[in-house]
Amino acid sequence: MPLAFEHETKGQRVLFGSGAAAGHLRDEVARFAALRPLVIAADRQRGLIERAGLAGAVRYHRITEHVPVEVAEDARAAAAQADLVIAIGGGSAIGLAKAVALTSGLPIIATPTTFAGSEATDVWGLTERGQKRTGVDPRVLPRTVVYDAELLESLPVELAVASGLNAVAHCVDSMWGPRADPINAALAMAGLHSLAVGLPGVVAEADRDAIEQSLYGCYLAAVAFASAGSGLHHKICHVLAGAFNLPHAATHAIVLPHVLAFNAPYAPRAAEQIAQALGSGDACQGLDELRARLNAPRALRELGLAEDDLAAAAQAILPQVPAANPRPVEADTLDRLLRAAWAGDQPRMESHP
Amino acid sequence: MPLAFEHETKGQRVLFGSGAAAGHLRDEVARFAALRPLVIAADRQRGLIERAGLAGAVRYHRITEHVPVEVAEDARAAAAQADLVIAIGGGSAIGLAKAVALTSGLPIIATPTTFAGSEATDVWGLTERGQKRTGVDPRVLPRTVVYDAELLESLPVELAVASGLNAVAHCVDSMWGPRADPINAALAMAGLHSLAVGLPGVVAEADRDAIEQSLYGCYLAAVAFASAGSGLHHKICHVLAGAFNLPHAATHAIVLPHVLAFNAPYAPRAAEQIAQALGSGDACQGLDELRARLNAPRALRELGLAEDDLAAAAQAILPQVPAANPRPVEADTLDRLLRAAWAGDQPRMESHP
Repeated sequence: MPLAFEHETKGQRVLFGSGAAAGHLRDEVARFAALRPLVIAADRQRGLIERAGLAGAVRYHRITEHVPVEVAEDARAAAAQADLVIAIGGGSAIGLAKAVALTSGLPIIATPTTFAGSEATDVWGLTERGQKRTGVDPRVLPRTVVYDAELLESLPVELAVASGLNAVAHCVDSMWGPRADPINAALAMAGLHSLAVGLPGVVAEADRDAIEQSLYGCYLAAVAFASAGSGLHHKICHVLAGAFNLPHAATHAIVLPHVLAFNAPYAPRAAEQIAQALGSGDACQGLDELRARLNAPRALRELGLAEDDLAAAAQAILPQVPAANPRPVEADTLDRLLRAAWAGDQPRMESHP
Repeated sequence: MPLAFEHETKGQRVLFGSGAAAGHLRDEVARFAALRPLVIAADRQRGLIERAGLAGAVRYHRITEHVPVEVAEDARAAAAQADLVIAIGGGSAIGLAKAVALTSGLPIIATPTTFAGSEATDVWGLTERGQKRTGVDPRVLPRTVVYDAELLESLPVELAVASGLNAVAHCVDSMWGPRADPINAALAMAGLHSLAVGLPGVVAEADRDAIEQSLYGCYLAAVAFASAGSGLHHKICHVLAGAFNLPHAATHAIVLPHVLAFNAPYAPRAAEQIAQALGSGDACQGLDELRARLNAPRALRELGLAEDDLAAAAQAILPQVPAANPRPVEADTLDRLLRAAWAGDQPRMESHP
């Protein structure tokens, strides 16, 4: 098959080291020659902020989920005199820094404290009157990411697993996203390998090595996914989580094996790479084993979705199916997929006709 | 082992497609809104230049190896009114475009016609009075690379194999270069896999798929190597080729298996990844099989190096050995390595003491 693709590699500096965040932040502020950084972080990050030599910086604490536009405006006003934005926190803190960068063009240094992955993408989101708008802009991609596994040690295991499985979904769905190409596939598979190695250790004992591997895997997952774009899996989860108010991470964990089983026979090279990254002879079996080790949820009905809602869900999903999906998606096959995910059935790989 | 690294991902746009170069160049010139591009290309690229809608552009033909500083000055003068530099050619044409960008800051679009890899790095080189100066500058990294396997179909097989093996060396040496990290390792291994799949086909029949795989592999090899920096292998080859005037590509092909055998027992994870990328159970055996399929040269003495020169070579190499090399390099072990490469002996993997 001819090799043809367009790929945009986005420039970013990544500093990775456990216990090194304070030193790395200090160095980066000096590298940017920033005199008036704005620090977006919850108050509990005070210790890190002081160790990074940022005790005198302007701080912004009002961090809420989904970046409401009023909060964004407020943070933008606080950044009026700033020459750099530093975000320390999860997706909400980094999302707020992105809202500031979107209008000001200020550079961002991001220090994540969860496995969310926002620090490695140029995607922004803002919520106005309950509606979330998202977009892509090169100005919101953090110029530097400072990763420090120590900052994730206090993350509750359940949250770590949920966002870790979300990262697994980023890797798998990158294989057939609308801009999938060999470069983002290579990054996604390296990320999946690290996640498969790391996440079981995060559940079992939250040891440092396991967090490092998982954090690194989440970073690659986010880079690959931002590049490849949402595939079938993310379109399904977006509808389910949005229209029926299901928890995002659990929805991802439940749906992913069904999408993999659905697509794998039609994407044999992707399935082979996924199997290899998972250290298994078979992609579906490898994902199933990982899911078992992480005690991931298995049925949409356990999240409160009514069986009667499945038809409406399928209706809403069908028009959003990416044209590039390796297997055609029809009403009946999608219905079977959703019913299996709802009931918690073992995902069934049908052979290619 | 703790995971700690600094990685700088460099932004670049890559357009890959056989027969698509003219259209891609046309689109990119429009995207840059360039009105006065300077086209650096040999006269034989006239057809492509015209199909790309660049018949009216200023052209520069005076391309010589190693970018003499006088030629660079001449090209810079020709670019005085330009708003974009387009290079179509091998390392010399792209190197000349880099010399122009280095002083002017003009963006570069590079369309390579060999497997050299310069299009994917921010490394420049200039030769003044026989001395080559090299440096790294973000301005010289081409903003867009347009890859088209058709442009490499007329490349002589011997040249293709030589530069292909140079790319293989980029991948392997990236595993222990001074800035080696998991990101450039992942890219290097994806590149090595493509090269191992593609290069034998380039030798056997120069089919389109084989050239595409090789070209893609060379791109990843260059990205990884520019990021990881020169390891032991490149330091050895640099001294041998420079001080004893040996042909670069053949020197690489001969020395690489010996460096791999030397380091592999001390870098078991790298060796495992190299083996996997080569589709072999063992890294050294996999490289040996690839080298056999490519009819690569096997002995430095066949290149005209005198046995008496080996001691002087070792003396010159020792101070340049990267501190990060996984195995300590002493005078006697280096001597054994060089003698084996000189005689064309089968590379010997000594076990870790």
